[in-house]
Amino acid sequence: MKKVGVALLGLGTVGGGTYEILVKNREYFRETLGLDVEVKAVLEKNLDRAKQLGVDLKIVSTDIADVVKNPDISIVAEFFGGIEPARTFLLEALKAGKSIVTANKELFSKHWYELEAAAKQTGAGLYFEASCVGGVPIIRTIEEGMQSNKIEQIKGIINGTTNYILTAMSDEGADYAAALKRAQELGYAEFDPTADVEGFDATYKISILSTLAYHKRVPVEAVKREGISKVDAVDIQIGKELGYTMKLLALSKNVNGKIEARVAPVFVPTSHPLASVKGSFNAVYLHGDSVDDIMLYGRGAGALPTGSAIVSDILFAAKQSEAKRYPYAEKGKSDLKEFDTDFVSKYYIRLKAADEEGTLAKITHVLGKENINIESVLQKKPISSDNAPIVFVTDKTAESNIKKAVEEIKNLGAVKEVDALYRVEE
Amino acid sequence: MKKVGVALLGLGTVGGGTYEILVKNREYFRETLGLDVEVKAVLEKNLDRAKQLGVDLKIVSTDIADVVKNPDISIVAEFFGGIEPARTFLLEALKAGKSIVTANKELFSKHWYELEAAAKQTGAGLYFEASCVGGVPIIRTIEEGMQSNKIEQIKGIINGTTNYILTAMSDEGADYAAALKRAQELGYAEFDPTADVEGFDATYKISILSTLAYHKRVPVEAVKREGISKVDAVDIQIGKELGYTMKLLALSKNVNGKIEARVAPVFVPTSHPLASVKGSFNAVYLHGDSVDDIMLYGRGAGALPTGSAIVSDILFAAKQSEAKRYPYAEKGKSDLKEFDTDFVSKYYIRLKAADEEGTLAKITHVLGKENINIESVLQKKPISSDNAPIVFVTDKTAESNIKKAVEEIKNLGAVKEVDALYRVEE
Repeated sequence: MKKVGVALLGLGTVGGGTYEILVKNREYFRETLGLDVEVKAVLEKNLDRAKQLGVDLKIVSTDIADVVKNPDISIVAEFFGGIEPARTFLLEALKAGKSIVTANKELFSKHWYELEAAAKQTGAGLYFEASCVGGVPIIRTIEEGMQSNKIEQIKGIINGTTNYILTAMSDEGADYAAALKRAQELGYAEFDPTADVEGFDATYKISILSTLAYHKRVPVEAVKREGISKVDAVDIQIGKELGYTMKLLALSKNVNGKIEARVAPVFVPTSHPLASVKGSFNAVYLHGDSVDDIMLYGRGAGALPTGSAIVSDILFAAKQSEAKRYPYAEKGKSDLKEFDTDFVSKYYIRLKAADEEGTLAKITHVLGKENINIESVLQKKPISSDNAPIVFVTDKTAESNIKKAVEEIKNLGAVKEVDALYRVEE
Repeated sequence: MKKVGVALLGLGTVGGGTYEILVKNREYFRETLGLDVEVKAVLEKNLDRAKQLGVDLKIVSTDIADVVKNPDISIVAEFFGGIEPARTFLLEALKAGKSIVTANKELFSKHWYELEAAAKQTGAGLYFEASCVGGVPIIRTIEEGMQSNKIEQIKGIINGTTNYILTAMSDEGADYAAALKRAQELGYAEFDPTADVEGFDATYKISILSTLAYHKRVPVEAVKREGISKVDAVDIQIGKELGYTMKLLALSKNVNGKIEARVAPVFVPTSHPLASVKGSFNAVYLHGDSVDDIMLYGRGAGALPTGSAIVSDILFAAKQSEAKRYPYAEKGKSDLKEFDTDFVSKYYIRLKAADEEGTLAKITHVLGKENINIESVLQKKPISSDNAPIVFVTDKTAESNIKKAVEEIKNLGAVKEVDALYRVEE
């Protein structure tokens, strides 16, 4: 039986979950895969945490040299998160010829070249399934299940915190502040929720997934980002009436080699499979040139789900012996150069207009001038106050057109304010 | 660059789709995977079909020896379907050391041992992603993405014909006959629809998926089977009112090593992700001990989606060089011996009762005697006719209990008939 020695760097939530799975299922992996996977070293300062998990303290250390110099260790799994010391430690492991497994999306999306170049020198493997969408094997699906396809589109609900908040706003009519507060109380959101609610976390993930899908490095900076902190509950409710559900989508499209990538609150039809992804669940919807539409759904976070992805990577790494490929080892070589900056989409516009005859006609005239067709109009009440809200859903149009039209609409005397502008993805 | 020679046995729908993908994406596979995959031989009698697809007639033959003896061919993909001649041809290919790729669920579910034993002798590979759920990489997910998990449950909508029919019955109120007729007109159902509507197709697939998930051969004969041809539209409508959607589920559970496997029309809560799988789409919902719930959704059939799975297998096979494992090569050795035959579930019961005082009390008394709790009761109208329908949804109970109770209820003088009994899965 093939023996596989593993080191765990850090015993936080996911590190602990990984240790638990490796111990409880060790015999199962021997039986089902013919692999005897043993944790040979753990890097952790907190000995109480190690004891609590039942780790033999003899294998616990705080010195990365104990991992790098141990010839019995072939795979190093990292759980620190953030850039340092994760980056330095993983580079040392790769230079020693050890394959690495990580959930560190920020490190991977920002330092991919450096890690891949180090791996290439020693023939080591890089595995990062856990960096995107927790337990859902989305990376394996792109790399080993859909590699026959040219992937044309990714639409992901890949941040559980924001999906929890938007679900509460949609299902219970809560406003943003109340939904965030509850998410914090339940542990779905951090005390400082910025990384999640402003979309940073999702940009790291869509950068990684888009790179794998389109075989071009899509850097984090290329991803347009808009969070959910400014979403007004009223638009979620009006959207529902129109048959749409609001989701924070991480979205990328490859249209004839031009790639668009962004994270933004977007309306999807309520009948779309993504609309039924509720609470902290995640899902990724892909379109390939052969397979058509496909969706993967599951838990995007948590000790055991993310640990499941880490351990699957460890087992996958342990089985590999074929020649590896390092397409991103040379900095800039595979970088995406051309970005689409004028995205085409349907749009949802909510505005306040004065109670004057002909207001609607003036607005539709502006839209018409920009060749924007209107799919539906919703006037919540008869125009009887100075603040009557009117909602338009347009046909597909370029972002530059809608922005130009919105500027003109704002200048119409009858329009008080344009309160909301969202994409509608079908 | 690694050169990979492929033979295609048959140019039917999926064979044609596979040829199309291999040709149109050949350059893409060279660039992205470093594999040069070329179709070196095609077995097909119909030369017109070959011409229509643009196949060079010089590589078309009707003699399997032209494939088996060609040293440039390392992978043989089969598209005949059914047992013979697929079985004989694939065994010859395996004996010649060629890896096989197939969508043939019937062959694989019935002759797995024989194929695996032949593969073991020469070290050839067996790939059958396309046999289950078309383009959805469910097998790769179980084997390479969730191998860190003990899988405890599979719930699949894995037959597009029946899902199309049930969706039409649910969304449009069509009855079974009308929905089947339209499915036939649109090409979603065969002229003789038995294999689909009576659940045979789904039993082959759940047999294969359960075997991979539980690491025990779950033979086709162990799968209890019930089709949809007797489903009454009235139950679908009443189910909707109660918050349930009817689906033909291929279902298997592993409870402490006891395995239940069946195909049956079942109610799922309308809020469940499986309920939103509409029309001819397929989905598989899995539960693993670490990853929790996960769902894969996509097209279960069609030339290009299924071709996508075939080509992904070809590319996967071409990359492999590790030692392969053959857990099912020895007949009977890994067979599942113990089957659960007394499944626990919630149940939906619809019956007709006479307009007599105390009827409801008599029925609930019978259920109570069998320790069956009632979750909800629905009486469509006040009992005013001899045919007033009453619907019960029970709490979880063993199948033997519910069957016993139903027999007793049938014998109550006040009960005219028990019209429907379905499981409710949550």
